[in-house]
Amino acid sequence: MSRGCITFLTDFGTADPYVAAMKGAALSVNPDVLLVDVSHEVLPHDIVGAAYVLAWSFRYFPPRTVHVAVVDPGVGSERRILAAEVQGHVLMAPDNGLLSIVLAQSPATRLVSVSNGAYFRHPVSMTFHDRDIFAPVAAHLTLGVDVGELGRPVSDPVPLAEAAPRRVADRVIEGTVVHVDRFGNLITNISRQDLAALDPTGDAVLEVGIADATIEGVQRAYADVGVGRLLAVIGSSGLLEVSANRRSAADVLGVGRGAAVRVTR
Amino acid sequence: MSRGCITFLTDFGTADPYVAAMKGAALSVNPDVLLVDVSHEVLPHDIVGAAYVLAWSFRYFPPRTVHVAVVDPGVGSERRILAAEVQGHVLMAPDNGLLSIVLAQSPATRLVSVSNGAYFRHPVSMTFHDRDIFAPVAAHLTLGVDVGELGRPVSDPVPLAEAAPRRVADRVIEGTVVHVDRFGNLITNISRQDLAALDPTGDAVLEVGIADATIEGVQRAYADVGVGRLLAVIGSSGLLEVSANRRSAADVLGVGRGAAVRVTR
Amino acid sequence: MSRGCITFLTDFGTADPYVAAMKGAALSVNPDVLLVDVSHEVLPHDIVGAAYVLAWSFRYFPPRTVHVAVVDPGVGSERRILAAEVQGHVLMAPDNGLLSIVLAQSPATRLVSVSNGAYFRHPVSMTFHDRDIFAPVAAHLTLGVDVGELGRPVSDPVPLAEAAPRRVADRVIEGTVVHVDRFGNLITNISRQDLAALDPTGDAVLEVGIADATIEGVQRAYADVGVGRLLAVIGSSGLLEVSANRRSAADVLGVGRGAAVRVTR
Repeated sequence: MSRGCITFLTDFGTADPYVAAMKGAALSVNPDVLLVDVSHEVLPHDIVGAAYVLAWSFRYFPPRTVHVAVVDPGVGSERRILAAEVQGHVLMAPDNGLLSIVLAQSPATRLVSVSNGAYFRHPVSMTFHDRDIFAPVAAHLTLGVDVGELGRPVSDPVPLAEAAPRRVADRVIEGTVVHVDRFGNLITNISRQDLAALDPTGDAVLEVGIADATIEGVQRAYADVGVGRLLAVIGSSGLLEVSANRRSAADVLGVGRGAAVRVTR
Repeated sequence: MSRGCITFLTDFGTADPYVAAMKGAALSVNPDVLLVDVSHEVLPHDIVGAAYVLAWSFRYFPPRTVHVAVVDPGVGSERRILAAEVQGHVLMAPDNGLLSIVLAQSPATRLVSVSNGAYFRHPVSMTFHDRDIFAPVAAHLTLGVDVGELGRPVSDPVPLAEAAPRRVADRVIEGTVVHVDRFGNLITNISRQDLAALDPTGDAVLEVGIADATIEGVQRAYADVGVGRLLAVIGSSGLLEVSANRRSAADVLGVGRGAAVRVTR
Repeated sequence: MSRGCITFLTDFGTADPYVAAMKGAALSVNPDVLLVDVSHEVLPHDIVGAAYVLAWSFRYFPPRTVHVAVVDPGVGSERRILAAEVQGHVLMAPDNGLLSIVLAQSPATRLVSVSNGAYFRHPVSMTFHDRDIFAPVAAHLTLGVDVGELGRPVSDPVPLAEAAPRRVADRVIEGTVVHVDRFGNLITNISRQDLAALDPTGDAVLEVGIADATIEGVQRAYADVGVGRLLAVIGSSGLLEVSANRRSAADVLGVGRGAAVRVTR
């Protein structure tokens, strides 16, 4: 009934015509499909950062949306392309760990290796699978093609190279900053569930250590501390963020993507 | 009949998934709505700049378009969210002055405080009203919800902190640069009407002073002066702009957002 | 049947509301039209770069798409606006060379000067033909207006000022870098056909010289050389690219847009 929706998350930037070529290829299959950019400003080749952005953005779209995520330093090699059915959505990405955060949070009802050339754009370029495989396959999915028709089931998706947060002691979790947003908020890979496991009663005043700062407690909103002050907060993503009220925590602390974070009960 | 249209103007940037989450939340309410980005590159927390961008862009869209403008340093505090019906459009923004330029130019036929939770996404995050209030409410408006259903009338919208242009003497108006565009054009808050009030017959050669330069007269087009030369012109926005033919006036003059401008008859 | 599609390629950037005003003007004519951004990050006034981006991106869209390309330092002067019918698409651009790469590759079935004010937005601004001419005319085209109704045929489109690649000797072609993408790939104006003319049998190992480097042979994919190594490849655009596997060739070589490239058999 609906015309279908495809979202795009890439490290392509917006100065080049690569995103447009993908969109044109999708529209050539389904001229009525709705196309939404999640972001094309993923740091070049930052699979970890993209994996978190994908995991926290896809669920706000209507079911049956197809999400195309391409951070693909291995294009032209033999890496597989995955399609995962998750919570009624379909997510497509190279098999390099990009789907791993999604899959850790919400197991796929189906997971396949995309290999059925019937849904590709031909000839398939060695350097541009985005336009020739991802986009047309996504468009076919919006037209009703079943995930099972794309290729054979996969049971061994490549995990993310970078570590998940670790419970290094009974009272301590260590994680990292996986994304820095435009406001300088430092989004970590430590989730609300991780904190609940550390402090099941919710009574403790947790300490968040990052760079040379120690922040006491987790607040409900930025405005809960004075202007310019650091705070820890569970962001809209369900992940622990280190922020500063009306300032950039990244600037205040002098850290960015990859910085270590330590939460102590 | 039509599927409806929502525009977005924010200071979120495009590297983060915040805009996509808003769009997903809107599509979850109205999967057929058309979504258009005005800009997400407003300077962080620059309410004044956004207020001018909004005022000059919304009117080019078809009537019944819903315009969502979010520059919201006060999110999480008690600030209201406004919805204004203006010239057949609906504009939504935090009550922090962002709508004030629009309202000064075109009084609202209705102005309400958005508080009816029936149109929100639940649970409402403390830090992400964009996704949980602005976007779903806008989508409900495109489906035919009436502005009056959103909340109670407001008669005291917060004015903009920064001053409007002032007639400091019979022959002099003083204003400021409210936006610098990609080409280095300096858009001021002095309107065509302000100049007409200064020079009712249109006969005078107005002098425009900015930084250490004085520009004689207001031209019709960039090409009316030599390449590289400064000029004053009424831009497509109806506002006085200081430009340079095929160069950046911001670079030539060494000034930017907030610079003082003085027009003398 | 379909609602129509317009693509946009400009040097306007995304911080200003100019693109949105174009889109609003198009939607005011055809509220159901699909709008796709190719890029707004063309270097300011870089007609050559935009000409190549346009030529390699338009063909991926469905036939009947209208492509609006605006890099227009001469706006306000007497330059014409062209509409070209090419391979079932319509392309609109100022008559300043922007269409010349498209037309060199695929002759127009019709080429006209856009002058019929019946399809303009009025009053027409001296500084904003994008909003008042390009966008509304494009939208009328998506509604079925014929190219021939826009204005009189043109037989003398302005050529591009910058030179095409030259066969400077039997065994040598010289060209330039016309675009640098986000990954630092250096896209040249030397096409697959140029290389085929240089080496009709395809047996030679071509040498690509750029800056102080000489690259032996043309590879099939980035992964055909070691990580960090330079390579030459025919990109998805059909143009010769100088790249580095998982690195920026622009950084490795210290060159960018406009750099000279020499291919020797």
